[in-house]
Amino acid sequence: MQCLVVYDIPDDAKRAKIADACLDYGLDRIQYSAFLGPLVPTHQDELMLKLKKILGRCSGNIQMYPLCQTDWEARRLIIVRAEGQGEPAPQEGASHA
Amino acid sequence: MQCLVVYDIPDDAKRAKIADACLDYGLDRIQYSAFLGPLVPTHQDELMLKLKKILGRCSGNIQMYPLCQTDWEARRLIIVRAEGQGEPAPQEGASHA
Repeated sequence: MQCLVVYDIPDDAKRAKIADACLDYGLDRIQYSAFLGPLVPTHQDELMLKLKKILGRCSGNIQMYPLCQTDWEARRLIIVRAEGQGEPAPQEGASHA
Repeated sequence: MQCLVVYDIPDDAKRAKIADACLDYGLDRIQYSAFLGPLVPTHQDELMLKLKKILGRCSGNIQMYPLCQTDWEARRLIIVRAEGQGEPAPQEGASHA
């Protein structure tokens, strides 16, 4: 099951650690503060516990959205790369709205 | 149906206009670059067309995720407010992981 994780974390060091934890669980960075990837429910729990521990008492907002196949297929993307930018888009081949 | 809109837009003016459009469609700001709220499919289409028009040729990444009731109820939130912060959390009363 695909899971979307989005967050707002003011503290730079905490934010970097949150991103590292998402990568550790195999999620892909689709935006600066958004990760996406397949996670079974047990790993969803584990990751959220880990993120909660990393955040600690620092202010922040972390949200995880598990997506069923229907919702996954209903997602809509607008991805525009400025000319001259060489890096790949976060989701190559995804549909554009 | 609840819809989540998340975006990464480097241009400040465009980003502000994208946020305004999301607010115009009745979405709530849940994070700096994330909005959430109920949207029927017709309004999902309309909003994405509007956002695409606003973004134009500027680089950016806008993603919309419609959420069925099951997915909506399965979301997990971690919201920590630093002591002394008076403003309400983006989603008061929502479950915490």
